[in-house]
Amino acid sequence: MVKAAAQPPGLGDNTADLDRLRRALAASGVEDPFFPYPQAGIVAKRFREAGFCGFAVIDASGPAVRVIDFAADDPGVIPAMALDLGTTHLEAALVDLKSGRRLAAANRENPQTAHGADILARVHFATRDGGLAVLKEEICAAVDGLAAELAAAAGCRAGEILALCVSGNTAMSHFFLGLDPFHLIREPYIPVVNFPDPAPAAELGLSAIHPAAPVLVMPGVGSYFGGDLLSGIIASGLDESEAPVMLIDVGTNAEVVLGNRDWLVACAGAAGPALEGGVARMGMRAGPGAIERVRLDGGELVFSTIAGEPPRGICGSGIIDLVAALYLGRYIDMRGRFVPERCRGRLAESDDGPAFVLVPAEESGHGEPVLFTQVDLDAVMRSKAAMYSILCTITAEVGCGFGDIERICVAGAFGRHIDPESAITIGMMPDLPRDRFVPLGNTSLAGAERLLLDRGELARLRELVRKITYIELNVNQDFMIRFSGCRFIPHTDRSLFPSVPVFEG
Amino acid sequence: MVKAAAQPPGLGDNTADLDRLRRALAASGVEDPFFPYPQAGIVAKRFREAGFCGFAVIDASGPAVRVIDFAADDPGVIPAMALDLGTTHLEAALVDLKSGRRLAAANRENPQTAHGADILARVHFATRDGGLAVLKEEICAAVDGLAAELAAAAGCRAGEILALCVSGNTAMSHFFLGLDPFHLIREPYIPVVNFPDPAPAAELGLSAIHPAAPVLVMPGVGSYFGGDLLSGIIASGLDESEAPVMLIDVGTNAEVVLGNRDWLVACAGAAGPALEGGVARMGMRAGPGAIERVRLDGGELVFSTIAGEPPRGICGSGIIDLVAALYLGRYIDMRGRFVPERCRGRLAESDDGPAFVLVPAEESGHGEPVLFTQVDLDAVMRSKAAMYSILCTITAEVGCGFGDIERICVAGAFGRHIDPESAITIGMMPDLPRDRFVPLGNTSLAGAERLLLDRGELARLRELVRKITYIELNVNQDFMIRFSGCRFIPHTDRSLFPSVPVFEG
Repeated sequence: MVKAAAQPPGLGDNTADLDRLRRALAASGVEDPFFPYPQAGIVAKRFREAGFCGFAVIDASGPAVRVIDFAADDPGVIPAMALDLGTTHLEAALVDLKSGRRLAAANRENPQTAHGADILARVHFATRDGGLAVLKEEICAAVDGLAAELAAAAGCRAGEILALCVSGNTAMSHFFLGLDPFHLIREPYIPVVNFPDPAPAAELGLSAIHPAAPVLVMPGVGSYFGGDLLSGIIASGLDESEAPVMLIDVGTNAEVVLGNRDWLVACAGAAGPALEGGVARMGMRAGPGAIERVRLDGGELVFSTIAGEPPRGICGSGIIDLVAALYLGRYIDMRGRFVPERCRGRLAESDDGPAFVLVPAEESGHGEPVLFTQVDLDAVMRSKAAMYSILCTITAEVGCGFGDIERICVAGAFGRHIDPESAITIGMMPDLPRDRFVPLGNTSLAGAERLLLDRGELARLRELVRKITYIELNVNQDFMIRFSGCRFIPHTDRSLFPSVPVFEG
Repeated sequence: MVKAAAQPPGLGDNTADLDRLRRALAASGVEDPFFPYPQAGIVAKRFREAGFCGFAVIDASGPAVRVIDFAADDPGVIPAMALDLGTTHLEAALVDLKSGRRLAAANRENPQTAHGADILARVHFATRDGGLAVLKEEICAAVDGLAAELAAAAGCRAGEILALCVSGNTAMSHFFLGLDPFHLIREPYIPVVNFPDPAPAAELGLSAIHPAAPVLVMPGVGSYFGGDLLSGIIASGLDESEAPVMLIDVGTNAEVVLGNRDWLVACAGAAGPALEGGVARMGMRAGPGAIERVRLDGGELVFSTIAGEPPRGICGSGIIDLVAALYLGRYIDMRGRFVPERCRGRLAESDDGPAFVLVPAEESGHGEPVLFTQVDLDAVMRSKAAMYSILCTITAEVGCGFGDIERICVAGAFGRHIDPESAITIGMMPDLPRDRFVPLGNTSLAGAERLLLDRGELARLRELVRKITYIELNVNQDFMIRFSGCRFIPHTDRSLFPSVPVFEG
């Protein structure tokens, strides 16, 4: 919003409406504004209706300053929408660009899950005839829906939303922009674009928000390192810290960044599903009835569920707690195998081999026992091994030890809910003082909000992208060697985990 | 077209396609190119298909350098379309941006004439419900049609046309851009915009040419001073001359510019219809059977028609010749009245009063006599008076005499066909050596071609627009006084026309 005031035209001054506005804007310090089609006519009309005096809505996200609307009165708020475009879940927030205040929040499932739960399946769907258009339309419809929901909650019209910033992984960004994801999943894993230029909402197929609202897509670094992670970096302030800081974002992939204001190293690997509750037979996303906490009490397992409802399954944080408790209670051994003598009476046979009966049928929320099978346990062992191997690899790559890391920021629902104590016990996270682990919540959304509120962050992002070194784990020999050593609880090298009890035999 | 060559991606260089192209372009001197949506995906695809080496199609007409396409091979020609958006007639040319050569030309009637022959009627139509959209669609369809015709003639596809420059009067430019023309015709006559920013063809509703081709609309100076006249200025080189040069463009309006490289004065007035053959009862646009030349031979009127066909009417140049011949043959007096004694046998009575029988029914091309009525004659007298008054006013305004003017450039079909001798005889043009009158043809089209071939002309146009002083004739007292003195042949002040014979009585 830039104040623009001009004298009305007369026979002595027959400057055209938009040229008059251009002159008024120059007087307010806005040089050479661009009037994009088809907004130009609307801007001229509103400028005239306002008596040639009011507030020009300016978009400076692109290479030219665009005048996209005009208001007679200074609006109280300037709503802009931030969106975390997650593979399974969309989270959005409406922020006021004037005050920086968050006006509303909303979320919904990603409608694209119907075409594949994971990115790989969706990329295959996209490269089939018309698939990409379907994915794009679905995501646009969902964004429009979220915009309407946010606007209603904030008491404004969705058409008044004057900017959108989207943060997602590289594949989701491609789907949203209608860009061919074919090469994302094929060696050497090349995106169509890492730093997309902004586009007007209407051109992108969005119909709820202001048609000329700039849509910014958070830039990425590579196929496996998307805008969601760059969001995390700016939200965590990692790139501004003097001492090394680590950022861990566990979604479907585990993505890790280590760095400070001078250098940044990143890598990503498939570590996730088990930790999202997506692999365990009784796994479920965090929701009512999900076991979210498990602890040992006098050698016995005690758990709590979300909303205190009868247990129906177990979510990511619960699974990590459970494995830690099973280990500490000696229900499982260091190789991640159930110990039949100790599990006596709680081990059943399932299609997936031996299964630990966490909750008997008569106590569960759905009349079925809540089981944790050997297959589930194996998946967790692999996941935690992958995670710790990634952390070791990235740390070794820059030649620093875990002890040198000032903070370990853990993003996402995973970061909000896991207990660092449990994660350390099973050897997933390094054995550091517990207060070095900082949960950050949805950093993808937070980064998008940040970019909306301070476009100066774009320069920071450019600098960031330039500075990041990306380690490709798929071709990293060290990673594979480390991975083997990590498939024990907590680790074959026990000196790495001094605070975790050791049981013999 | 900018050459862009990059190494193909590999695991050691996972730069994304468009970022790779950006890097290659930087090496070719193109800094910070913008990839507009939805072209970005197509550009990336073609860059990849071309083996990451070829030619980027660059549009530098706007504030950012836009990459709008990519070709593996250097095309022989780069077709661009210039268009004169006339009120009654559209004239187009296809030029090659590489060689500057004209590849093809085409023209057609302006389909909007169905909604009003003149601008005023069309502005009224536009401000009725949905009228503007109809006018815009019609003109876009016509432009698409012309593009297809030009492409076919030049042996290329219309989709290969990579730029369009449109030159028209201010109302036509508004119709084309879908801008509300309401205030154009109401005091103080303010356009929505004089200097429209370029827009991509597809956004403007054009479907034949390249969707991202920049559409440049020649800027104007005011409601009655449009891009067609600015085109005329750059086509005539008026603004680069040391001595004063005058440009006269007679369409529906008479538009006049006087100036040199230091100053420019312009004005316009309603002078036209009679001179376009649009007012005379038997008037017609130049076409087969139109009387285009009339001269006196031994005191008798002799005429020739276009294509030598039997006469069906008389066009603008013919009318001026006719009135001059009628005066020189003393068929009319200096007040523009038929002299019955002299016209003996050729004067008939018509609904419009006395009428001169130019061609009897039995000799005409349609079995009706070709008449020239007193009403027609009165219209010509008003037109020629208006024209000369405009020329006097503008000359007086800058304090120079007609003798100081080095060249009088006469644009359009009018300029191509009128005989300066006749125009001077009837007192429409100043009595100067005949070789000072230079016919220029369609300068509106020529200016559009110029701008396509040299975008540097945009800076020239900006400077021009800044420099022009526009004289509003509607409120000019001097003009009205002069107008009265001009309603004689050649003028009440005969000293102004020394070379025109004087007849007493």
